[in-house]
Amino acid sequence: MGMFKGQAKQAIGWTALAALGLGSAASAAPLLGFTDKSSEAERALEARFDAALSPSEIRERLKSMSSAPNQVGSPHDKANAEFVLSQFKAWGWDAHIEEFSVLYPTPKHEALELLGPAPFTATLTEPPMPGDATSANTAGALPAWLAFGGDGDVTAELVYVNYGMPDDYKALDRMGVSVKGKIVIVRYGGGWRGLKPKLAQEHGAVGCIIYSDPADDGYGAGDVYPKGAWRPERGIQRGSVLDMPIRAGDPLTPDVGATKDAPRIALADATTIMKIPAVPISYGDAQHFLAALGGEVAPKAWRGGLPLTYHVGGVGAQVHLSIQADWSQKPLYDVIATLKGRETPDQWVIRANHRDGWVYGAYDPLAGHSAMMEEAKSIGALAKTGWRPQRTIIYASWDGEEPGLLGSTEWAEQHAAELKAKAVLYINTDTNGRGFLGFDASYSARRLATQVAADVVDPETGESALRRAFAGIEARALAPEANDAARAEAKDVSRTREIPIGPMGSGSDYTPFVQHLGVASIDFSYRGEDEQGGIYHSAYDTFEHYDRFGDPGMVYGVAMAKTGGRLVLRAADAEIAPLSFTESADLIGENLDQLHKLVDVLRQRAEAQNRAVDDRALVLAADPSHHHTPPTKEDPAPNIDFGALDAAVAQLKISAAAFDAAAASEAGLKPEQRVKVNAILQGAEQALTDGRGLPGRPWYRHLIYAPGVLTGYGAKTLPGVREALESGRWSEAGDYVARTAQVISAQTALLDSATALLKP
Amino acid sequence: MGMFKGQAKQAIGWTALAALGLGSAASAAPLLGFTDKSSEAERALEARFDAALSPSEIRERLKSMSSAPNQVGSPHDKANAEFVLSQFKAWGWDAHIEEFSVLYPTPKHEALELLGPAPFTATLTEPPMPGDATSANTAGALPAWLAFGGDGDVTAELVYVNYGMPDDYKALDRMGVSVKGKIVIVRYGGGWRGLKPKLAQEHGAVGCIIYSDPADDGYGAGDVYPKGAWRPERGIQRGSVLDMPIRAGDPLTPDVGATKDAPRIALADATTIMKIPAVPISYGDAQHFLAALGGEVAPKAWRGGLPLTYHVGGVGAQVHLSIQADWSQKPLYDVIATLKGRETPDQWVIRANHRDGWVYGAYDPLAGHSAMMEEAKSIGALAKTGWRPQRTIIYASWDGEEPGLLGSTEWAEQHAAELKAKAVLYINTDTNGRGFLGFDASYSARRLATQVAADVVDPETGESALRRAFAGIEARALAPEANDAARAEAKDVSRTREIPIGPMGSGSDYTPFVQHLGVASIDFSYRGEDEQGGIYHSAYDTFEHYDRFGDPGMVYGVAMAKTGGRLVLRAADAEIAPLSFTESADLIGENLDQLHKLVDVLRQRAEAQNRAVDDRALVLAADPSHHHTPPTKEDPAPNIDFGALDAAVAQLKISAAAFDAAAASEAGLKPEQRVKVNAILQGAEQALTDGRGLPGRPWYRHLIYAPGVLTGYGAKTLPGVREALESGRWSEAGDYVARTAQVISAQTALLDSATALLKP
Repeated sequence: MGMFKGQAKQAIGWTALAALGLGSAASAAPLLGFTDKSSEAERALEARFDAALSPSEIRERLKSMSSAPNQVGSPHDKANAEFVLSQFKAWGWDAHIEEFSVLYPTPKHEALELLGPAPFTATLTEPPMPGDATSANTAGALPAWLAFGGDGDVTAELVYVNYGMPDDYKALDRMGVSVKGKIVIVRYGGGWRGLKPKLAQEHGAVGCIIYSDPADDGYGAGDVYPKGAWRPERGIQRGSVLDMPIRAGDPLTPDVGATKDAPRIALADATTIMKIPAVPISYGDAQHFLAALGGEVAPKAWRGGLPLTYHVGGVGAQVHLSIQADWSQKPLYDVIATLKGRETPDQWVIRANHRDGWVYGAYDPLAGHSAMMEEAKSIGALAKTGWRPQRTIIYASWDGEEPGLLGSTEWAEQHAAELKAKAVLYINTDTNGRGFLGFDASYSARRLATQVAADVVDPETGESALRRAFAGIEARALAPEANDAARAEAKDVSRTREIPIGPMGSGSDYTPFVQHLGVASIDFSYRGEDEQGGIYHSAYDTFEHYDRFGDPGMVYGVAMAKTGGRLVLRAADAEIAPLSFTESADLIGENLDQLHKLVDVLRQRAEAQNRAVDDRALVLAADPSHHHTPPTKEDPAPNIDFGALDAAVAQLKISAAAFDAAAASEAGLKPEQRVKVNAILQGAEQALTDGRGLPGRPWYRHLIYAPGVLTGYGAKTLPGVREALESGRWSEAGDYVARTAQVISAQTALLDSATALLKP
Repeated sequence: MGMFKGQAKQAIGWTALAALGLGSAASAAPLLGFTDKSSEAERALEARFDAALSPSEIRERLKSMSSAPNQVGSPHDKANAEFVLSQFKAWGWDAHIEEFSVLYPTPKHEALELLGPAPFTATLTEPPMPGDATSANTAGALPAWLAFGGDGDVTAELVYVNYGMPDDYKALDRMGVSVKGKIVIVRYGGGWRGLKPKLAQEHGAVGCIIYSDPADDGYGAGDVYPKGAWRPERGIQRGSVLDMPIRAGDPLTPDVGATKDAPRIALADATTIMKIPAVPISYGDAQHFLAALGGEVAPKAWRGGLPLTYHVGGVGAQVHLSIQADWSQKPLYDVIATLKGRETPDQWVIRANHRDGWVYGAYDPLAGHSAMMEEAKSIGALAKTGWRPQRTIIYASWDGEEPGLLGSTEWAEQHAAELKAKAVLYINTDTNGRGFLGFDASYSARRLATQVAADVVDPETGESALRRAFAGIEARALAPEANDAARAEAKDVSRTREIPIGPMGSGSDYTPFVQHLGVASIDFSYRGEDEQGGIYHSAYDTFEHYDRFGDPGMVYGVAMAKTGGRLVLRAADAEIAPLSFTESADLIGENLDQLHKLVDVLRQRAEAQNRAVDDRALVLAADPSHHHTPPTKEDPAPNIDFGALDAAVAQLKISAAAFDAAAASEAGLKPEQRVKVNAILQGAEQALTDGRGLPGRPWYRHLIYAPGVLTGYGAKTLPGVREALESGRWSEAGDYVARTAQVISAQTALLDSATALLKP
């Protein structure tokens, strides 16, 4: 999956940066975790690594792997696994396929009809596109499909609920419209797909239709395929609606690897499967349903790009929706390739990309996958010359990411103990295309990310990927439509001179590693110019489309391989694991500042609303010709005592600075001390987890970043506290202030012990 | 005309206000300019005034006056003038028609065609609407028409320039697209209509098409007529493109009344007429033209609600536009009705609304006009009982407002000397409908406006119009989409407890009075719920439409009459003219604060852009697959010395407070002193004008508020300074700091002399 988050990231008082040499490729500054001397050797190695990268091999591999539908259980997915395995082996890797057996529902029957006044049967399919040969190779392709929606056959009035997010239901309440017993139609966007049926069923709806509005990724975004890159009238966004904010992975094997004979719960007991039927449709289909809706005119912010007046419905459009899935087990084929470390083989650097798509999956995920394989090819070639990394390198090709991070999660659960003991860094990619290098990552990886970005040349400008990312950030802050976030990012970058690191939410395979196990992780891509949004998860995500719009010439494929390769090689070869904590402590400090502000904002908002309730302002301001249920008074946020967190963060900042300084100045560290320091660093991210997990979702253990319960992909920072505050659960917020302070202090203690080793 | 500005105005820590009694109708507090005793008598008079107001008479009058096309020169416009005259006379007013002869171009020939690739001839007409009898009465109706566009017959490629405002042309430059020798197509909105052809011709375009985008006032705004109120597919917005930001009124008789034998300049010398042909079209027509455009995809903010991808064009759409007008003189019929003042007949209170529409004009202007006549009827009835106002009251029914404020401007120019010597207050209305009371007014009228709003009952809520306006402001500040301006307005109202007063820009007949002559003026309407935006200036602005959507039952017509009547009666009867200066000085102070901030913002923006130019950020951030001309360096704002203005405003605040306090506490003022004080107040707004006028437009003499040269309707405050700053004319800004400080000090001196009279 991997997109629709962080797409809008990327612009510095640049002059200063240029002067510092941070923007120029291949600077001579020492690398994090390396000495001056070993930095030099590492850069020489990277030059050899680069030399073997071939855009045409990336392109050919992408073309063949995306030539047929390759979703979980498809013949081509298995063939791709075998091809990947053979390639790894040919390149000298110790590789095997690790198989799991997971619940993966496929369509047995689906139908969607508008019963009146102008009856219409939804097409639920995507016709082949002239000029796109791949799109005609439809044998075995999934129709319109939302994996892990419920089975059901329902007939009911239709209600339009905009993005189907919590505020949308509040607005609907104000209009006096209920979705109870109704089928909802929601548009993509505003939050993760899976929340749409989940919130719909929580509000009593009996079915859920999700459509792609042309304003968002169709003709409103640009010329549609095949004239341009954007979603054509019949394009459908498939996807998973598994309740991943609660737990990723096979719904029947929570917490354990879904091996053939793993203990399984009953289907009926699976908590992450939706109860109501849900289906995705194109805007060509949606127009018929939306045009039939009666009721009030939808609020201004709810109106999309179809040539009609959007109504909230509840009257006028009787709809029949019927879904039946085949709920059998399907096989997963994870391909795992290992290159054993020379010095500390029990320290692992893991690099992965998923392999399964929704249909052909050229952009999502095979562009990233093909670039990753190019890295493995080049590292294999280095190994053939006798070079070995200090740490063990593992390349993984995940299956079943699309339905619910299945391949990565089952593997991570299966190998949990070993990963906790050994994994130093998990490096993930997914989609990729023309544009700007962007990261979501563990905060301690910011320095590493910046240094790598400075050493990779952006193919379009010939400047470093770092400098181009900074230019993008600066340009966006200057644009007429710049918002506070854009300006804040430019300020941050101008102050820190580090590439921005988005906090890790979800949406790709790093989640089981960072969120569940506490393995420091990096996810990155090039993006922002690739125009792949309109074919996302559709049958038009083809090689032809990608080759024309996504990354012509595969030059960003090469840039991804250079970036991924450097991350892997530096993490595998550094004397001291290339993590740094000053930036990390700063970012946690910023997250805490935001919580302080959040409490004030929540209190002020509740007080203002309560005043308005008292003086009847919202009643008097309402247009009496429309229904208006005024809000009631709210419980304003009490004073939350952030003292423990404030103190913990303050101490972390001191200890982080001391560690980073000690690590930077170390020269003649004895090997056994280095091993001890590295062992400590290997556990530093895990220190930020709490085995009790987050409220209502113990699988998520990281207390600094998590996907939001009500955002799905988008990250919430200090989530235990933040989500409690946002939901008005004041005492829970207090509990998590204490727990979060504890994990921060645990990391502080680790850093102090490492510093003591470095400066005896 | 009168709309599309201030529509989005209308919310307070309400509890406090309610406690102060400000929100409750008919409070017993003394009225501004009255003593306790005379306040009581005045309120009794107003109760008698209210009793005679009849919604059914407002409705019948509206129905008959809007039954046929009534633009300038039409038979029904003349018949309406005679009807109005007869009514005034019947109600006991001393009334007459004052005739002028003005240049008013009407269509002789017009044609617009798309030549290829899919040829299409624009319809340029509006078919009758089922269920709307008036709309079928098309004899004599104007087709699609923009008065004062140039004659011409041109064939050229078409370029889409969004709203056609200065920033749009900058964006087009960045895309490497020029409009030189091209025809432009622009959408309504973003600035006044007349600026669109003006800026187009300044950029070298040879023709201009203006269309109504459905996102703004068609199906994107709500259900279209006749199902709902909004603009149907064939609806056309006519209008004037006279260069009114330079000068209003007849283009051939600048500065003098256009009497039959007034000196006239040659048509070729008229500077306020456009040089290129221009035509308005419906979105039904526009879709053909926009779909044909090639070139780059238009920037995100430029895309409207049609089901297509908006392109900037320059290639792909060859267009032929031909316009020929009849440039003969046409008669104007202003109806003037006078009720002589008992005590000071040479102090005039003027109340007016225009009478001419673009077609039937039910909403614009006859709803306001009919309410105004109801006031005159009731005041006439009071006069018949022997009551006489202290000051002279003049009611005026203006002709020719739509093409360029012709009737009001010619009358004001014709009577300029007398008006400068006698006019105390000019009270204007135009459109009216369901919703919230809102004012644009001279700052000194804020107290009066607040008191009147507190004494008029809002028909939908039964609370005062003031309280409802405050509730609206509070609600808007609480809405999810609330912006800084909405929150600032709520704060202002919560602090001042006064109804918001928008600064006077243009868009209706107050302009010649306040902007040119310096007569203190008020413009008000009820608005925000009337859904009249979609039929604005179209053939669907009919009685049927207005009666269904604009003001069913004409209850807001009555509210307008109560509001207008109170303003007139209080201004006419107050012992001391009901102007107050504390609020005025505060508002001028706020405007000055904004200028200080503006200079900082302009400087920071230029510096940031210059840094980005230096470090090539905008070059590096650009997508190389699109054309991108990066900006060049700008001259940052120097330090502007606002010392003279700061000092003048500080002194005005002191003198204003002293005057208001003295006026409030006066009790036994001798009649001859009162006459002197009133004479001073009569000139207080004029003190804020400078005979040399604003830069490049000497007709506009007010130095505190003016329509913006580049906004057209929207006001610019402290315009001499502000517009110089916004255009980077730094030395001119310095000049106008001095001039503006001078006029403020002149008002300060007048107030000091009046205070001296009050406190001898």
